[in-house]
Amino acid sequence: MDLNADLGEGFGIWRLGDDEALLGLITSANVACGFHGGDPSTMRRVCAEAARRGVAVGAQVGYRDLAGFGRRHIAYDFAELRDEVIYQLGALDAFCRAFRTRVRYLKPHGALYHAASRDESQAAALVAAVNEYDDQLPLLCAPGSVLAQLAVGAGLRVVAEGFADRGYLPNGTLVPRNAPGALVTDPEQVAERAVRMATERTVVAVDGSVVPCQVESICLHGDSPGAVASAEMVRAALIDAGVALSPFA
Amino acid sequence: MDLNADLGEGFGIWRLGDDEALLGLITSANVACGFHGGDPSTMRRVCAEAARRGVAVGAQVGYRDLAGFGRRHIAYDFAELRDEVIYQLGALDAFCRAFRTRVRYLKPHGALYHAASRDESQAAALVAAVNEYDDQLPLLCAPGSVLAQLAVGAGLRVVAEGFADRGYLPNGTLVPRNAPGALVTDPEQVAERAVRMATERTVVAVDGSVVPCQVESICLHGDSPGAVASAEMVRAALIDAGVALSPFA
Amino acid sequence: MDLNADLGEGFGIWRLGDDEALLGLITSANVACGFHGGDPSTMRRVCAEAARRGVAVGAQVGYRDLAGFGRRHIAYDFAELRDEVIYQLGALDAFCRAFRTRVRYLKPHGALYHAASRDESQAAALVAAVNEYDDQLPLLCAPGSVLAQLAVGAGLRVVAEGFADRGYLPNGTLVPRNAPGALVTDPEQVAERAVRMATERTVVAVDGSVVPCQVESICLHGDSPGAVASAEMVRAALIDAGVALSPFA
Amino acid sequence: MDLNADLGEGFGIWRLGDDEALLGLITSANVACGFHGGDPSTMRRVCAEAARRGVAVGAQVGYRDLAGFGRRHIAYDFAELRDEVIYQLGALDAFCRAFRTRVRYLKPHGALYHAASRDESQAAALVAAVNEYDDQLPLLCAPGSVLAQLAVGAGLRVVAEGFADRGYLPNGTLVPRNAPGALVTDPEQVAERAVRMATERTVVAVDGSVVPCQVESICLHGDSPGAVASAEMVRAALIDAGVALSPFA
Repeated sequence: MDLNADLGEGFGIWRLGDDEALLGLITSANVACGFHGGDPSTMRRVCAEAARRGVAVGAQVGYRDLAGFGRRHIAYDFAELRDEVIYQLGALDAFCRAFRTRVRYLKPHGALYHAASRDESQAAALVAAVNEYDDQLPLLCAPGSVLAQLAVGAGLRVVAEGFADRGYLPNGTLVPRNAPGALVTDPEQVAERAVRMATERTVVAVDGSVVPCQVESICLHGDSPGAVASAEMVRAALIDAGVALSPFA
Repeated sequence: MDLNADLGEGFGIWRLGDDEALLGLITSANVACGFHGGDPSTMRRVCAEAARRGVAVGAQVGYRDLAGFGRRHIAYDFAELRDEVIYQLGALDAFCRAFRTRVRYLKPHGALYHAASRDESQAAALVAAVNEYDDQLPLLCAPGSVLAQLAVGAGLRVVAEGFADRGYLPNGTLVPRNAPGALVTDPEQVAERAVRMATERTVVAVDGSVVPCQVESICLHGDSPGAVASAEMVRAALIDAGVALSPFA
Repeated sequence: MDLNADLGEGFGIWRLGDDEALLGLITSANVACGFHGGDPSTMRRVCAEAARRGVAVGAQVGYRDLAGFGRRHIAYDFAELRDEVIYQLGALDAFCRAFRTRVRYLKPHGALYHAASRDESQAAALVAAVNEYDDQLPLLCAPGSVLAQLAVGAGLRVVAEGFADRGYLPNGTLVPRNAPGALVTDPEQVAERAVRMATERTVVAVDGSVVPCQVESICLHGDSPGAVASAEMVRAALIDAGVALSPFA
Repeated sequence: MDLNADLGEGFGIWRLGDDEALLGLITSANVACGFHGGDPSTMRRVCAEAARRGVAVGAQVGYRDLAGFGRRHIAYDFAELRDEVIYQLGALDAFCRAFRTRVRYLKPHGALYHAASRDESQAAALVAAVNEYDDQLPLLCAPGSVLAQLAVGAGLRVVAEGFADRGYLPNGTLVPRNAPGALVTDPEQVAERAVRMATERTVVAVDGSVVPCQVESICLHGDSPGAVASAEMVRAALIDAGVALSPFA
């Protein structure tokens, strides 16, 4: 099983999350590329450390929106979004190359992640960007999303991720953020759900039913208080359960 | 002889210079990388057209200063400048790769060009960036500059450029912008000086003396009125004089 | 009748439209405030010249999106949009005060104009901004829009504007941009429609019917080729028809 | 005596310093205006709370450099700097007006503070901005600086500030940052120095001599660990010594 988290999301003097600590716990780092967060020196630092530790680096591409941290939907034109994603891919890859590695996958951030799950044009822009830049690059995204469908149709590799700290509906999709059961906050329960995802490929839905959850990576959230402690528990529980942790890419 | 010019310096809705016309006249395009000008869709368009026409693409890297178009000196820290240059190199290279080519050289823009001519720290940051990203990449810069010296010392290839539309002092350096004779505005005279640079490797200085001018590329300015007409005359005069035009890289 | 146009929409080195020429033709200048376009020195120059000529200055507020020129919808949070509008109002007002005048009205730009026509939250953010900053400030907007309704409900003055170069449906709304008849391109026809709007308070719809058009201002578009020539014809035709031109504010 | 500190220096999702705590301790808030840090919603929040508590709001104007937090010198043109300062003044004043107060003074930030201390052109740009915007606005700056001299010459009010946590040379200027004795880190000593500044108008220099220190405000640094605790000690010590704390403006 792979563990992924968002890293390098500070900007200039401003910090966000504990990159150092998370790099010791995860196997894949979704590194911000400077559009919604992240700056060149932060990107370099994370890529250097990830290369040293054998953590795979993925391009966490986002909208050009530092003020909104990429969390506001923007009605991008297809071509502009494709080109901004190629730009971000290349920029991050430059730091990977400097440390004798490469960008290993792409994961959209924030509002782009959500838009790509349901908007054909924005999902297609991501697929086109990967196709043009490097068609061997997998996309890390939600199973069943429009992005996953278009990517598979274009011959790209899609890697599904699960969320051990989010509630699931019986149909296998996430409970909406504002509905009861959306978040699982007890770290022990989060760890237990991660182990179930990794070993039984299932998740317990909000109604108590056990539903399939075929994922190759589990996403850990890094910017909330207690995030590192929770990530440590998930990692320890997976190792205790005999789950081998390694990058999917 | 190589002919280089700055291209892709618009941003979003705003245009600057006539990229299309210049691409038909030059052999090397210094493409803006988004920090002082240039946006991903413009970069893509220029790279696509340059690849189609066999024009070499160089990274015209600049300060992060859209409001000042990279023309104001910024007291960058060494590491920040190095990392911003690597970022820009990678971003532009992504579009080159998409069109089956590569960034072929680096040329600093505006205030960074001037700073790198005399400031050890900023020049060293450019050298470090090229060394880390791709140490086969030549630097296009002013002969005798601090940048040229540091780059040669680091084992990088340096390509000297001349300015057919700028006055020269007897010592082979440019007449300062605000001094008499700084600019050569008559297009015929500009063309004649370009031919002399290409065929005799000399330039007539402001005092009338003929001084050596060992350059591998001639820089054409693209954003002034009459720029395209002047570039056409230079190109035609060089071809008439039997000078073969091709990228240095 | 008032004539309004967008001005000051360059940024840094980049220019857009012919501010100088338009300032001699219009009575109200919608001045960009730096978020979608416009920079402080441009704002100052336009405010100085507008003050000198007796042209009213309005705040043309937009999304924070230089790369997209404020033409892409952004899903702003109510409070963030309200605060960004207050910020822009104050910034522009500073230049007006420096030239012994004041911001006289607010007009949203681009995607914000469209959003405020139909989105309650974004329209309410504009209303709240004006209410907090200066509740005597009129809003210049499309008649019948959600913004107009909320503004009237909040006790603000609403000024309706018409478009002499746009087609109208029989119900008095604009023909959608991609539908036949959306644009009126013949300058003589544009001028004739402006005169009808000013003297008869009607417009000829795409089906030939004559429909009411109660507007206090006519919007002239400034950034297309031929814009200045077209604006000159509209102004001349209105004056010929005996229409007095003066700012509504 | 007045106590001032930098506030509102976060941007978007990113926070810096503890605005809430400092607002309970200081009498003048230097509020960032969006160019080096600060965003409209943060500006509003700080202005609202400052108005509620009777804390004076000053415009902490800076270079347009979010990536460098305004700490890198930028070779601004006089007119561009003047206009960017007017823009920032107006933007902040808008939020003050919304809460029935006004910007009460101007203090330059970071590299602009340093530049204005010795660079005639940049100091003159600040003076021109204040003169144009509101010539009753005092400038808070280092005594003896070029800015202070030019401001006084222009008839503006200058308010000198002292630094209880910085070492002083016998000539009354600060010990350079990289020299021994530059920083005073012991909070008790900082508090003691503040009391001396307020009651005796002197400071103990690095050589032990007692030198005059005629200041109307003491600057507290807010973004270091322990900043709030240190500010609390300074405030308590001043009150214990019978010093009345109130805004200078």
